[in-house]
Amino acid sequence: MSDLLDSIGARSWFLGDNANRTIGVGQLAALCHELVSSRGEASGVRLAAEILRGFRSLSDTDAKRFFQMLADEFTPDQAALSDAAAAFLDTPDAETLARLQHHAEAPRQELFRRLNLAPGGTAELVTLRERLLPLLKADRKRYGPVDADLCHLFQSWFNRGFLLLRPIDWNTPASILEKIIRYEAVHAIGNWDELRQRLAPPDRRCFAFFHPSIPDDPLIFVEVALTAEIPVSIASVLDPQRTALSPQDAQTAVFYSISNCHKGLAGVSFGSFLIKQVAQDLKDAVPNLRTFVTLSPVPGFAGWLAALPPATIDRLEAPEKRAIEIVGEPGWAGDPAKAEAARAGLLSLGARYFLRARRPRGGPVDPVARFHLGNGAMLNRIMHLGDISPGGLAQAHGLMVNYLYDLPRVEQRHEAYAADGDIAASRAVTSLLPKRGEVNSMKDVA
Amino acid sequence: MSDLLDSIGARSWFLGDNANRTIGVGQLAALCHELVSSRGEASGVRLAAEILRGFRSLSDTDAKRFFQMLADEFTPDQAALSDAAAAFLDTPDAETLARLQHHAEAPRQELFRRLNLAPGGTAELVTLRERLLPLLKADRKRYGPVDADLCHLFQSWFNRGFLLLRPIDWNTPASILEKIIRYEAVHAIGNWDELRQRLAPPDRRCFAFFHPSIPDDPLIFVEVALTAEIPVSIASVLDPQRTALSPQDAQTAVFYSISNCHKGLAGVSFGSFLIKQVAQDLKDAVPNLRTFVTLSPVPGFAGWLAALPPATIDRLEAPEKRAIEIVGEPGWAGDPAKAEAARAGLLSLGARYFLRARRPRGGPVDPVARFHLGNGAMLNRIMHLGDISPGGLAQAHGLMVNYLYDLPRVEQRHEAYAADGDIAASRAVTSLLPKRGEVNSMKDVA
Amino acid sequence: MSDLLDSIGARSWFLGDNANRTIGVGQLAALCHELVSSRGEASGVRLAAEILRGFRSLSDTDAKRFFQMLADEFTPDQAALSDAAAAFLDTPDAETLARLQHHAEAPRQELFRRLNLAPGGTAELVTLRERLLPLLKADRKRYGPVDADLCHLFQSWFNRGFLLLRPIDWNTPASILEKIIRYEAVHAIGNWDELRQRLAPPDRRCFAFFHPSIPDDPLIFVEVALTAEIPVSIASVLDPQRTALSPQDAQTAVFYSISNCHKGLAGVSFGSFLIKQVAQDLKDAVPNLRTFVTLSPVPGFAGWLAALPPATIDRLEAPEKRAIEIVGEPGWAGDPAKAEAARAGLLSLGARYFLRARRPRGGPVDPVARFHLGNGAMLNRIMHLGDISPGGLAQAHGLMVNYLYDLPRVEQRHEAYAADGDIAASRAVTSLLPKRGEVNSMKDVA
Amino acid sequence: MSDLLDSIGARSWFLGDNANRTIGVGQLAALCHELVSSRGEASGVRLAAEILRGFRSLSDTDAKRFFQMLADEFTPDQAALSDAAAAFLDTPDAETLARLQHHAEAPRQELFRRLNLAPGGTAELVTLRERLLPLLKADRKRYGPVDADLCHLFQSWFNRGFLLLRPIDWNTPASILEKIIRYEAVHAIGNWDELRQRLAPPDRRCFAFFHPSIPDDPLIFVEVALTAEIPVSIASVLDPQRTALSPQDAQTAVFYSISNCHKGLAGVSFGSFLIKQVAQDLKDAVPNLRTFVTLSPVPGFAGWLAALPPATIDRLEAPEKRAIEIVGEPGWAGDPAKAEAARAGLLSLGARYFLRARRPRGGPVDPVARFHLGNGAMLNRIMHLGDISPGGLAQAHGLMVNYLYDLPRVEQRHEAYAADGDIAASRAVTSLLPKRGEVNSMKDVA
Repeated sequence: MSDLLDSIGARSWFLGDNANRTIGVGQLAALCHELVSSRGEASGVRLAAEILRGFRSLSDTDAKRFFQMLADEFTPDQAALSDAAAAFLDTPDAETLARLQHHAEAPRQELFRRLNLAPGGTAELVTLRERLLPLLKADRKRYGPVDADLCHLFQSWFNRGFLLLRPIDWNTPASILEKIIRYEAVHAIGNWDELRQRLAPPDRRCFAFFHPSIPDDPLIFVEVALTAEIPVSIASVLDPQRTALSPQDAQTAVFYSISNCHKGLAGVSFGSFLIKQVAQDLKDAVPNLRTFVTLSPVPGFAGWLAALPPATIDRLEAPEKRAIEIVGEPGWAGDPAKAEAARAGLLSLGARYFLRARRPRGGPVDPVARFHLGNGAMLNRIMHLGDISPGGLAQAHGLMVNYLYDLPRVEQRHEAYAADGDIAASRAVTSLLPKRGEVNSMKDVA
Repeated sequence: MSDLLDSIGARSWFLGDNANRTIGVGQLAALCHELVSSRGEASGVRLAAEILRGFRSLSDTDAKRFFQMLADEFTPDQAALSDAAAAFLDTPDAETLARLQHHAEAPRQELFRRLNLAPGGTAELVTLRERLLPLLKADRKRYGPVDADLCHLFQSWFNRGFLLLRPIDWNTPASILEKIIRYEAVHAIGNWDELRQRLAPPDRRCFAFFHPSIPDDPLIFVEVALTAEIPVSIASVLDPQRTALSPQDAQTAVFYSISNCHKGLAGVSFGSFLIKQVAQDLKDAVPNLRTFVTLSPVPGFAGWLAALPPATIDRLEAPEKRAIEIVGEPGWAGDPAKAEAARAGLLSLGARYFLRARRPRGGPVDPVARFHLGNGAMLNRIMHLGDISPGGLAQAHGLMVNYLYDLPRVEQRHEAYAADGDIAASRAVTSLLPKRGEVNSMKDVA
Repeated sequence: MSDLLDSIGARSWFLGDNANRTIGVGQLAALCHELVSSRGEASGVRLAAEILRGFRSLSDTDAKRFFQMLADEFTPDQAALSDAAAAFLDTPDAETLARLQHHAEAPRQELFRRLNLAPGGTAELVTLRERLLPLLKADRKRYGPVDADLCHLFQSWFNRGFLLLRPIDWNTPASILEKIIRYEAVHAIGNWDELRQRLAPPDRRCFAFFHPSIPDDPLIFVEVALTAEIPVSIASVLDPQRTALSPQDAQTAVFYSISNCHKGLAGVSFGSFLIKQVAQDLKDAVPNLRTFVTLSPVPGFAGWLAALPPATIDRLEAPEKRAIEIVGEPGWAGDPAKAEAARAGLLSLGARYFLRARRPRGGPVDPVARFHLGNGAMLNRIMHLGDISPGGLAQAHGLMVNYLYDLPRVEQRHEAYAADGDIAASRAVTSLLPKRGEVNSMKDVA
Repeated sequence: MSDLLDSIGARSWFLGDNANRTIGVGQLAALCHELVSSRGEASGVRLAAEILRGFRSLSDTDAKRFFQMLADEFTPDQAALSDAAAAFLDTPDAETLARLQHHAEAPRQELFRRLNLAPGGTAELVTLRERLLPLLKADRKRYGPVDADLCHLFQSWFNRGFLLLRPIDWNTPASILEKIIRYEAVHAIGNWDELRQRLAPPDRRCFAFFHPSIPDDPLIFVEVALTAEIPVSIASVLDPQRTALSPQDAQTAVFYSISNCHKGLAGVSFGSFLIKQVAQDLKDAVPNLRTFVTLSPVPGFAGWLAALPPATIDRLEAPEKRAIEIVGEPGWAGDPAKAEAARAGLLSLGARYFLRARRPRGGPVDPVARFHLGNGAMLNRIMHLGDISPGGLAQAHGLMVNYLYDLPRVEQRHEAYAADGDIAASRAVTSLLPKRGEVNSMKDVA
């Protein structure tokens, strides 16, 4: 249908000086069809730039119409695909397979590849997907295929083999550093002085992955503290008064914050590569480092605890019940006596949460745990009062944890987790589980 | 089946210090299966590096077995695909389509994407395809699908949006310049002095596309001479005695050599983008430039002429027949009288060759013509004695041509050529066609 | 005498791990003598580093003693110099001249040159002079020669031919940007957001001179606003709410802040070169720029006015007297009626201040005026309420001025000012002078 | 006098488009005076560029007149200097000293400093001195003071603290590499393939000093071979057939060629710094390196031997006399028997040459020996048939030597050499001296 749209209008729109004119979805559709046609070969760069510029100026309503257009008009040709499927079923050979593959791929993929011809196109396509994701939640059936095609392409384009690992430090351009402030998702960076505290001291490191086509905007970054011991709280890591450690005296690298930068790259995973690469590089640069751990939040703990049914709570140990009462009292974490009284129970509940609680499909409840355990890390320690910021208390009653990256064992642990769901945990963690009671009842509890 | 191979052997092979040991195809197959398994997620970088290192050391016989393995073991699962095809035919909706797409994609694609995790993986995969191409000619049915998957990936990875255009000049690192010498495919560069002649003078330019993951190896490059007039022969362009022109006095940019650097990227086209981008950039940098033309060989002319049937030759014009006789005499080009006597006939035959001769499917016979006309260029001039080097005489009896890139009209000409097979040619060229005789008979001739 | 000092102590000090030990002035003196000896040739880099490290750790009292040592022990040998002077007087020829020159140069110069061998030595020597300058004020006779030698060397080393002009923008490393904040001497930059306002918008520019041996620390920088008209106040330039102008629409480049960064380079002048170079570069990059002016403070106006003797004030014009009364009233600048009532008188007094008032030796009273007029600029306009910040009111009762850099006339104006003391001023300025009264009496006034 | 020259002519010359016009020495003189005047402050960059451009175009005759002008017109004012000298003799204090210093400095120095304002001025001044040096030999009295001023400035400007050490390798721009070919002064580089042999293999290194203002032209460079043992001949080092050594297997770094690049920097010494810095950097980068030696020519040996008086030769040992006879026979080095027969005598004579022969003022005769011994190196070994190229035979009858840089002992050896003339030599060398005969007589011999 869009073939019938006023493609003359579309054409006149991008010729001449009309940077400030808006464009309709119909015109954009015509341009998209032109871009994937043979005509697009000769003028792809310009057409792609026009389409992306036009998309950027669309209202949310029009953007939705644009995505509907992508879903409807750039889907595989059903008749041709059906024919190809039938032919393959009839005679499955290399030729019918190739034809089937050809018709199965949505024309959107070629459209997206050609949109990438525009200067800055890669970043624009990431932004395009960022606008698609909210629609996806509302109507996965309609927008899912569009997203699947984008995601498939991003998996290929943002292949780790293409990414550049770069240090972020106080010599990094301010234009990138302000993005670090903006993107930090775990422990907010309030201002440039706080940023400087995280980048400039000799015992601090930060690394980011960049894509060569988006050189001024990181994809993901990790902040690292070099310390003597594994720290017991985030406050001690971020303390602006602390004395910086000489790297030669450090034995531990603490990954205390990992942030993805672009919603439009959701589902394209770099985190595992980043942590392992940074650990390896740090090991090479600072040979005295022995231990590589995270200092991680426990985002699901408070919610999980709140959702335990009364019957389950009844069956908990006494210190656990006591802890549940205490954390319900305002200001408990600032009261040393109360905080101490809650310790044993919270740690015990934390151990249940990590080691026993399961999602319906079987993995651990905690999303951060799933990420690190899936990477082959081991749950190393649960820390009481690890994060007593309002956010830390609200989501985890102050608990934080370490995941240990023991590089020689990462692969084996990854496999055990992936194949059998094994949760690698240190004795320090497993010993927190209540001694009494049977496993069954505990499973029941968590 | 390869699941049953001695994966322990494969494993022990790459652990430990075995850089010099060879590896069998069976072991490589096991490693490839491991790489695409969930296990590969944790140790992909290392596995990929091992596989590529192993492949590099394979003999040609073993490399062939490796590609057979890729063809056989990493093809879509026929049963699953058949099921998915049947389900789609039964109920064509988003879900069955997604399933069909999933099963239609050969697992090779994921394998190749993961091989790219290795440092230098992108370049290695290009080399891998270079070893595949000779096999492809011998058995397209077997190896075609493997090649199609590689090619599909390369189309995506080497998207022009990811390429970097860089000037190549006398300040370029020697390690890159020696590759320019090696890759030059049109007019050979004999030594570093000749290279300097093409790069250092102020009226010479060279530009190359690079991929960010292969930063020290160009993909394609073009050599440009800035001149006052359109030159009439390659010798005048490459004359080491010529006086360099000040760029301010140049009105013409002559693209006199374009070379693809990697056989493994055959079919992944960058040439059109390169020429247009370079023309645009030159126009911005040297505003007095008015004309952008190639100085191109005519590789198919002599072969076409030799293959004309006697009956056709009979019907040619007298000067044409005379020219055919002359070019059969050794040394004719060095004899001014003979050369002059052949002029009219050769130019007339050249015009027939470009404007009338057609391949079975309809395009022009000359491959260089197909490339430039397909880019939207116009055949601007045919030059007698344009290239009197042995190669130039052997392939084209000395003819060379210009293709004119008239940027504002490139798009329109591309479309006319793509849609209708229109061959854009200047009056200077069309007027070379013999005046007498009807079009039909001429078509017949060529 | 220092030859007799414990040079063994000095030696043992810098061998071995004594980075934290302090060093005495006597030991430093011994090291300095060693550095200029033949011994210093073999181990100059190390010795220089040790001396500079030692100097850095000196208390102010010891630093003073160190400079005294330099003054006393590294001065020309008086006997040898007297001999050479006598020989020259006796027979003035090339030989006696060379000998005289040799003995006239203080050994300090060679010492300083060799101290520069240390990594980072250039920057350290600048810092060394920074510590010398306060002493110089107290005892010019003693420390003047030391300073003269340093200054002589810096004039040579920081020759404009060696300096690098670099843009400072939002892509500049944060480690340099924080120095811009710190060094800004005219209109303070309160925080990073204010810095961003001065660097990131498309109508803002900043440029700095760097020395290649001090690559991460600017020597001097200038901030520029691209505007349509010459602005009438600094507030309008720095207004965070203003809409940025597209550079293509700018006709005026306003140099609104110039800051020297290092006290240790006092007297080594780069400002003139910087302004002219930046003006030239901006003209090339933004061809539509027509006018290059400063927006400058008037640091001496209020002090000059306050020091006018009563008899002189008596002879002023009525509006001038009225203005003097008004600016004595707190809050006048915020009261539109009062501010307007003071306008004519302040501008008239400003014109007297610039055009009539003279220092004892003849130049204008205002130091900023001396700098720009000496560069060949013209006093273009005096602006009432140009800077109503507390500082602007305190030093200049709100006056600001423009100096116009008319590049083709800069040389001629520089000469007229240097040779004859001519103060180039526009009619807009000269017409502010009171019409009545003779020149003599006015001179008397100012 | 030059004040009276046609400065209007000079002025008109450089205004307007006259890049191709020549300029007279009189006009250049006028421009030089203008440059050092106050006028020069405003237009120094342009004036300096004009003068240097004009100088470049001078014929040798005119260049000589130009240097005469510098000698005559930019020398200290004799009257003022005499006054200052008298005043200092009368009252030697800080003030009269400062005045004396001021008038003792030739105005040439300020002229040269201001010439450096021109873009590329530093390199031009080096070239200017290159043209001065031949004149200096002919008339040191006249041109010596001009040269002394240039040299004094260069000592300051090319201070090691300002120099950049950069690796030269196969990734270096060709524009720099062609200079390496041109400047190589010890073992000529015949073509780019030979250059590649010296730069690309993993066991080869090359480093150069650059000045930041001359970034594309090295000042001095050293070529290094990483080897297992100390090589016995230059041919073995440069053998194109040799197998490259892995750096991890190297224990020795051989500095086999050091070349100064600019005659205009004669007397400004960087070589010592270069060798020591490179040795230090190599030690850090390749920790398994144990020994740092040169492989050096013996340029003065054959000349010294030829000049020995007959009486001295009479008193030599028999093998020495035999060797003198043999090296007089053409082709001896290619005849194994003769070469072997000459060995003992040549080595013995070599030992005398290095250890006993002295210049009138006392240093060793060999200039390369003076350089390395002055740097604190030790004469480590004398090698028979070390360089049997025509040049090597002509200057040294095939001898080559190693100088050992034992970094911890370099300083001490430098001092012993500088203070006492001690020639550090290994036992392998000293043991080559004839056993019989007293020291006195040997001294006599050499």
